[in-house]
Amino acid sequence: MQVIETIEELQQILNRNERKDTTVGFVPTMGYLHEGHLSLVKHAKEQNDIVVMSIFVNPAQFGPGEDFESYPRDRERDIRLAREAGVDIVFIPSVEEMYPADGGIRILPGKQAHELCGAARPGHFDGVLKVVLKLFNIVDPDRSYFGLKDAQQLAIIETFVRDFNLRTAIVRVPIVREEDGLAKSSRNVNLTDSERSEAPVIYRALQFGASMFADGAHPETIEREVSEQIVSNSSGKIDYVNMLTYPELGLVTENTRDVILACAVKFSTTRLIDNIIMSTKGGTHVSNDDEQ
Amino acid sequence: MQVIETIEELQQILNRNERKDTTVGFVPTMGYLHEGHLSLVKHAKEQNDIVVMSIFVNPAQFGPGEDFESYPRDRERDIRLAREAGVDIVFIPSVEEMYPADGGIRILPGKQAHELCGAARPGHFDGVLKVVLKLFNIVDPDRSYFGLKDAQQLAIIETFVRDFNLRTAIVRVPIVREEDGLAKSSRNVNLTDSERSEAPVIYRALQFGASMFADGAHPETIEREVSEQIVSNSSGKIDYVNMLTYPELGLVTENTRDVILACAVKFSTTRLIDNIIMSTKGGTHVSNDDEQ
Repeated sequence: MQVIETIEELQQILNRNERKDTTVGFVPTMGYLHEGHLSLVKHAKEQNDIVVMSIFVNPAQFGPGEDFESYPRDRERDIRLAREAGVDIVFIPSVEEMYPADGGIRILPGKQAHELCGAARPGHFDGVLKVVLKLFNIVDPDRSYFGLKDAQQLAIIETFVRDFNLRTAIVRVPIVREEDGLAKSSRNVNLTDSERSEAPVIYRALQFGASMFADGAHPETIEREVSEQIVSNSSGKIDYVNMLTYPELGLVTENTRDVILACAVKFSTTRLIDNIIMSTKGGTHVSNDDEQ
Repeated sequence: MQVIETIEELQQILNRNERKDTTVGFVPTMGYLHEGHLSLVKHAKEQNDIVVMSIFVNPAQFGPGEDFESYPRDRERDIRLAREAGVDIVFIPSVEEMYPADGGIRILPGKQAHELCGAARPGHFDGVLKVVLKLFNIVDPDRSYFGLKDAQQLAIIETFVRDFNLRTAIVRVPIVREEDGLAKSSRNVNLTDSERSEAPVIYRALQFGASMFADGAHPETIEREVSEQIVSNSSGKIDYVNMLTYPELGLVTENTRDVILACAVKFSTTRLIDNIIMSTKGGTHVSNDDEQ
């Protein structure tokens, strides 16, 4: 496995004239790898000749007062896990390498970014689109792999690719969970023991909401019930519980095909997100759970 | 020469696995071709194996009340001129082909866009960056050719390419002028005979301003004198006359290397732009005039 720190060196290796028909699968991450990331790698390996993973905690997507400084980092462990997972090239640029200059150009998402995490994290998705466009241009991947845990991010990136003809396919990869149902997240290490024992209530409540949806309950009723289950069974504070169309993130109507039931819950300073995506066609199916 | 109307067909032809080491030079235009565009083609042919020209009057870069509807168009003449100039592929998409959906994502330029034409045309450069990113992704050119007549557009695109690692080199091509000095423009056909006879005053005034700069005059003095020369020798109305650093478009200081003296002048409904770029190092040289 090659560990690359500069854009120039990576682009030399991945130059299309050199790599010819070799396909590249790209797994962008912020590091502190867990099984969710390794699942992205597994999917990328199955579909491509070369797998490139980036590890970059992107300051542009953290707001003032957010956890950019305290976001967990472990370079050596990440490199070892990536190697064991069969990654071919790890790209670990510095902030200076990624952002040497700033001419002030910004990419602003549309209405999709106003819902869910967008309300509480203004500017977050600007920063995501900025780094994603840069990384896509640097790596020039055939396919890029994103986890459905960050479902809103994935939806916005899919829109970006579609509307701006970006030269990569986007592959949705299901959420990977702990045995007790908690979605894998780099932020889980920041939970106290008692918070960690309470946190599985999030997924249980979402599953209950999914069953209510299958029984024909109204989105607002579902949102209220899921919130209620979480707050009465944990110390978690609700940031949002919302049911929207997916990937448009609009109001659920008679004609909606896929819906997302998503939430963000805060345990003291640790903010966890989770979701279930369901189809209204051919019966309700939970499309974003890993092979179970 | 191939005339292509769909993105899918163009991308099949230009697929990197097919074209191998063949280099592609790209000339984006809004059509109604003149010698300025053909100069872009000439430069592209000298440096690349294949030349792709796009012809697309981009509605996203016209504001309400601007001349999108009346912008001159002549598809058959453009195709003939492109063929004669040695273009290999002309891409002429419809508005529906380029903008089938809109998820609301916008690309906003920074401070560079507030100066010069940006003040009078809010949103103009958003639309330019949108179509440019789409076209770059569709064509995947090795080099893209832009005329220095639209010097602000060129500066913003250079910043976009630098800050977002876009996969094309940008080549600056000098302004092409009529024999009397008027910069070639698709909009020149909209001038009345008397306006056409007055319009060369723009370039004469800019040249005078350049000589004042060489003699050490202050930017504000130059701007005032150039404006005065234009209004007292024509029916043109000044939109702006500005001297700024290039390509940053900031204030001229002791340490400035390159400066632009740029203006926009309105003759009834026809708005003409022109500029001269000068270096402060090694004597004043006019860098954007064609081989003369």
